[in-house]
Amino acid sequence: MKKTLTLLKIGGNIIEDEAAFRQTMHIFARWENLKLLVHGGGRRADNICQQLGITPLMQNGRRITDAPTLEVVIMVYAGLVNKNIVATLQAEHCNAIGLTGADLNSIRAHKRPVQDIDYGFAGDIDAVDAQAIRQLLDMGATPVFCAITHDRQGQLLNTNADTIAAILATSLAEEYAVQLLYCFEKKGVLLDPADDDSVIAEMDIISYRAYKKQGIISGGMLPKLDNAFAAIEQGVKSVTIGNMEALAKGAGTKLH
Amino acid sequence: MKKTLTLLKIGGNIIEDEAAFRQTMHIFARWENLKLLVHGGGRRADNICQQLGITPLMQNGRRITDAPTLEVVIMVYAGLVNKNIVATLQAEHCNAIGLTGADLNSIRAHKRPVQDIDYGFAGDIDAVDAQAIRQLLDMGATPVFCAITHDRQGQLLNTNADTIAAILATSLAEEYAVQLLYCFEKKGVLLDPADDDSVIAEMDIISYRAYKKQGIISGGMLPKLDNAFAAIEQGVKSVTIGNMEALAKGAGTKLH
Repeated sequence: MKKTLTLLKIGGNIIEDEAAFRQTMHIFARWENLKLLVHGGGRRADNICQQLGITPLMQNGRRITDAPTLEVVIMVYAGLVNKNIVATLQAEHCNAIGLTGADLNSIRAHKRPVQDIDYGFAGDIDAVDAQAIRQLLDMGATPVFCAITHDRQGQLLNTNADTIAAILATSLAEEYAVQLLYCFEKKGVLLDPADDDSVIAEMDIISYRAYKKQGIISGGMLPKLDNAFAAIEQGVKSVTIGNMEALAKGAGTKLH
Repeated sequence: MKKTLTLLKIGGNIIEDEAAFRQTMHIFARWENLKLLVHGGGRRADNICQQLGITPLMQNGRRITDAPTLEVVIMVYAGLVNKNIVATLQAEHCNAIGLTGADLNSIRAHKRPVQDIDYGFAGDIDAVDAQAIRQLLDMGATPVFCAITHDRQGQLLNTNADTIAAILATSLAEEYAVQLLYCFEKKGVLLDPADDDSVIAEMDIISYRAYKKQGIISGGMLPKLDNAFAAIEQGVKSVTIGNMEALAKGAGTKLH
């Protein structure tokens, strides 16, 4: 039987809220399964860009990463945010190790080709070294990935954290029974955005398509759910979406 | 017989000079021994501090690390510099993994107590987890340490890179025959600072004391050499000081 691996993705909303951050780390550190954390960066990178006179540019919810922005993103994601997570988990006696995709060549990507939009130094993932990650897990370590990859030609690349979580989950699904948890600010995917308690408890690809068609699910949830269903298609055991409180007690929206 | 481990410490002068940096990475990547890199940060952290309106403070050659400075130091050392080194080594097919002392709890320190001077978030090292580093080396990985440690209570700490190199070397000396190489801008320790070719080829603790007494060696070289002789005292096989060209061909100043 495969060992269970719990893969938690946390976003900027948790990183920016000191109390939520501490609580999330406290809960995560206590999970007894093998586990892995993927984190976004939040608005901190935007703040530092502004202080340094770099204007943050977004297109379709993705950052346009020019060279000065890439430097800030590397500093904030791989430096400040990643190492504070690692130090906080270590204080909770979770043996964390912070990684970008360049470390151990764990996630190789290529610079997104310019079509309609030039995303700059944005990376689309080519390969995950599941073996390297397994060796860290075998050591008793908990990998903590930030949203930076590399092209193995010396170039670091900014990569969407939801996508990294989904691709890590699918790459590890052959070896482990992977539970992928997307932590965000709501209790789950909502039937009515105005009602925080209207959580859709379960969803399969068919009901998802229906919700999409009816316009019940739209906007920023779509890429997240597309990623999630793709992960299930590729062998991930379960995907759950919700806030940390929901995820900690097994609630949220379960996809299957 | 113990396996040889080559531990190279590089400073800011190499990190800031694109050509020297590339050449150093190229040479280091090709060394066939087990190896480990320790790097400083250079003036980049000062530049970013200034851009963010933080005034860099130094005392006795050490940075005074207040809270805003610590954030910049983490961003620059653990983020920008460390991950660019890792990506560059990966491009050279060296399987690098970037680390702070928080990662795998590899280097635990405590905040330096306030005596005459309050150094702020400066860390003095308590313990190295040689076992964790050995496991990475056994995986075929090359650890790349930046000059950040932690106190295992969630606090990251700024720590002198020369000291990290020396303590890592002594901590690994039981398991490996450690060659510690300090790379700096000169060909070696000079008899006459005005003559770049007046390299002292070899030095033991007795001749070092004599050079010190005569004032031939002074200033910034003293803490470096004190660290180096302490490392030899504690079992490190050899310590060599010089620029990368000298170190690459086995020249420089050899301490024994």
